[in-house]
Amino acid sequence: MEANILVGGPKQFWPTNFEQVATEHAQDFIWVGADQGAVALCELGISPNLAIGDFDSASSRDQFLVQVRAQKIISARSEKDYTDTQLAVLMTEKYFPQVDKINIYGATGGRLDHLLANIFLVLGPEFEHLATKVRLFDYQNSVSFYLPGEYQLLKEAQMTYLAFIPLTAVKNLNLFNTKYRLAKAEFDRPISLASNEFMEEKAHFAFSEGVVCVIQSRD
Amino acid sequence: MEANILVGGPKQFWPTNFEQVATEHAQDFIWVGADQGAVALCELGISPNLAIGDFDSASSRDQFLVQVRAQKIISARSEKDYTDTQLAVLMTEKYFPQVDKINIYGATGGRLDHLLANIFLVLGPEFEHLATKVRLFDYQNSVSFYLPGEYQLLKEAQMTYLAFIPLTAVKNLNLFNTKYRLAKAEFDRPISLASNEFMEEKAHFAFSEGVVCVIQSRD
Repeated sequence: MEANILVGGPKQFWPTNFEQVATEHAQDFIWVGADQGAVALCELGISPNLAIGDFDSASSRDQFLVQVRAQKIISARSEKDYTDTQLAVLMTEKYFPQVDKINIYGATGGRLDHLLANIFLVLGPEFEHLATKVRLFDYQNSVSFYLPGEYQLLKEAQMTYLAFIPLTAVKNLNLFNTKYRLAKAEFDRPISLASNEFMEEKAHFAFSEGVVCVIQSRD
Repeated sequence: MEANILVGGPKQFWPTNFEQVATEHAQDFIWVGADQGAVALCELGISPNLAIGDFDSASSRDQFLVQVRAQKIISARSEKDYTDTQLAVLMTEKYFPQVDKINIYGATGGRLDHLLANIFLVLGPEFEHLATKVRLFDYQNSVSFYLPGEYQLLKEAQMTYLAFIPLTAVKNLNLFNTKYRLAKAEFDRPISLASNEFMEEKAHFAFSEGVVCVIQSRD
């Protein structure tokens, strides 16, 4: 079972076909809306299984919409140690333990402190066990996270570039079947190894310590 | 002396008044264009002191424009270990050692691997000494970087939020005069302490180890 979390970033950053796919396949997913993302889901005609936020800045029409449509509303007011996205991920896990993939939309394109909180989310001690379940999507980026191990990546349709981004100190990073390869590379700080590419439909990589973010993207 | 570097991110992410301020005050700055940023500077009527890139994907009209207008062109083709932004920063330092501030525009809003490379730029060993000179600006974010020490921050006009973002392990982080305060906090991984705010026109912070990114932003 997959959960889709929509957070409040600008709509023009949603994947190109997000609204169509979301409404046509609404029944196939658990839907969680964070703050303005909950309002946006309701406007799409999707009833969020969970709505997270304090909705302080929402209009009374928007608050009413969420109250009518959302199956459950969780106040973010009492959980100020977490961002709305963090809380949405934690509550998704709590209420829907059967979920094995958490897709986050609306997490890019606005304030950079929010974007970085979303990228760094899986580094928090309460979140690391969820790292490989969480992915972020926008109209030109697909972001996934990996803990130590060996992995196969599949080239996503319409994506051109492949980036490996150690978010922490990373040891023994090996990139196979990519345009630029690496063997046993070590990094002691975050770095974005940008603009790599698939050489065929699959690529492999492995590392022994740390957290690596992988981004497939296009211009 | 300040240098302005324009890189190739989408124009809609430039600060609201960038084109007007840039053209009216063009004489006050060293101008460096990276890849499509060099083309964009030429189109604004600004002659880049340096243009960096391979311009492979530029049209012949754009290549001609840069060749005619740029005072010096540096090929990125032979420096593939660096992104265009990294190379622009290094070459700015090399050719204009009198520069004490490096403002980067056009660094946000498109591919996230590029954005993260720009945010993590100052963590590279060749760049850390430039960390406090480098800033990134877009239409809703102003990003600066700090090495260990004690600092005063001034609230920027029109910005609402203030975020402290340890990009590495950080020790002894103290936040004073901010809505949410911290005393002697330690972080062993990157984290975005988002959505803090100034309580007055100034705030102070200090830390003893690592690299901290500070973002002022607005919705």
